[in-house]
Amino acid sequence: MAGQIDFFYEFASTYSYPAAMRIGAVAARAGVTVRWRPFLLGPIFASAGWTTSPFNLMPAKGRNMWRDLERITEGLGLPFRKPDPFPQNSLTAARIATALADDGKRAAFSRALYALEFGEGLSISDPEVLGRALETAGIPAAPAIAMAGGEQVKLALRATTEEAMAKDIFGAPSFITRDGELFWGNDRLEQAIEWAARNG
Amino acid sequence: MAGQIDFFYEFASTYSYPAAMRIGAVAARAGVTVRWRPFLLGPIFASAGWTTSPFNLMPAKGRNMWRDLERITEGLGLPFRKPDPFPQNSLTAARIATALADDGKRAAFSRALYALEFGEGLSISDPEVLGRALETAGIPAAPAIAMAGGEQVKLALRATTEEAMAKDIFGAPSFITRDGELFWGNDRLEQAIEWAARNG
Repeated sequence: MAGQIDFFYEFASTYSYPAAMRIGAVAARAGVTVRWRPFLLGPIFASAGWTTSPFNLMPAKGRNMWRDLERITEGLGLPFRKPDPFPQNSLTAARIATALADDGKRAAFSRALYALEFGEGLSISDPEVLGRALETAGIPAAPAIAMAGGEQVKLALRATTEEAMAKDIFGAPSFITRDGELFWGNDRLEQAIEWAARNG
Repeated sequence: MAGQIDFFYEFASTYSYPAAMRIGAVAARAGVTVRWRPFLLGPIFASAGWTTSPFNLMPAKGRNMWRDLERITEGLGLPFRKPDPFPQNSLTAARIATALADDGKRAAFSRALYALEFGEGLSISDPEVLGRALETAGIPAAPAIAMAGGEQVKLALRATTEEAMAKDIFGAPSFITRDGELFWGNDRLEQAIEWAARNG
């Protein structure tokens, strides 16, 4: 049985950026199929009593995260620029990703949008930026953005977020294998893929 | 110039356990000298408004941390048993470590105490357990425990904790190189040691 993994990512999440850029190659080498699962961290943080990113709530932790991300992206040869404000409003981005089929299009749009957000520091709630990411992914922008506003897509994104919370996800990126093992963070990507390859 | 690194650790910190067990070998291979710097996270967490470990404040994060630590220690061949309560009161342990010379004795005591705490699940505020760790490290227990109660040791530990906070440390384990680069977490041990080896 070929391995499969659920990749839960949030467009406002800093460490989801390197994970999204890496997971395709790491999973392919191991023969593992990736299911791209965009979700929202906001409702999960809110249920912990947080009103913003923990990186803003604890400034020293935030400063170290930005420096760490700088070191990580440099090591990977990825461009890096901090978006302002942080965190970005990721609702429309997550709805667009949800609306796209998980047949390569969703992944391509997601990678393109992360590159604009954390590689160029652009605002991902800006329709022009969302349109650029769609075009980079080879997807006609206007119909995708229109579809993302539909009731069905809103409900689907809410369902994914509720599923994430029910599966004990508390941050992003997170990886869940078919046998229910949860791994949190870009640092655990390799370990999660190995687990998925081993345990189906 | 040979590399040097400051290893800031907290006896109540779960991820300080694998870091303390690994750092000697990783640093030796790179020719880096380790300065063992026990400190207290309590005052730092308190300044963020927290009254206990963030792993207790966010239960899903806590559950994942314990599972992650289980996977990490299994991978390293280290015994693992969750101490109760968590976090342990680490004040006396940190004072004893502070009182010991950083010439191998402090490291030996620290490793022995981590093994009892997270390998056997024992209480590190128990004088009997502290005595066992000292004896394992080849240090006469009674004089070390007596010295740890002295005013000078209390002030020295407070100074290390204040230094950690001034240097932007927000969690444990943390590593600071001579040129001021801060790395957080057991996951960053190798990267921190490489940095220290490269930058003196």
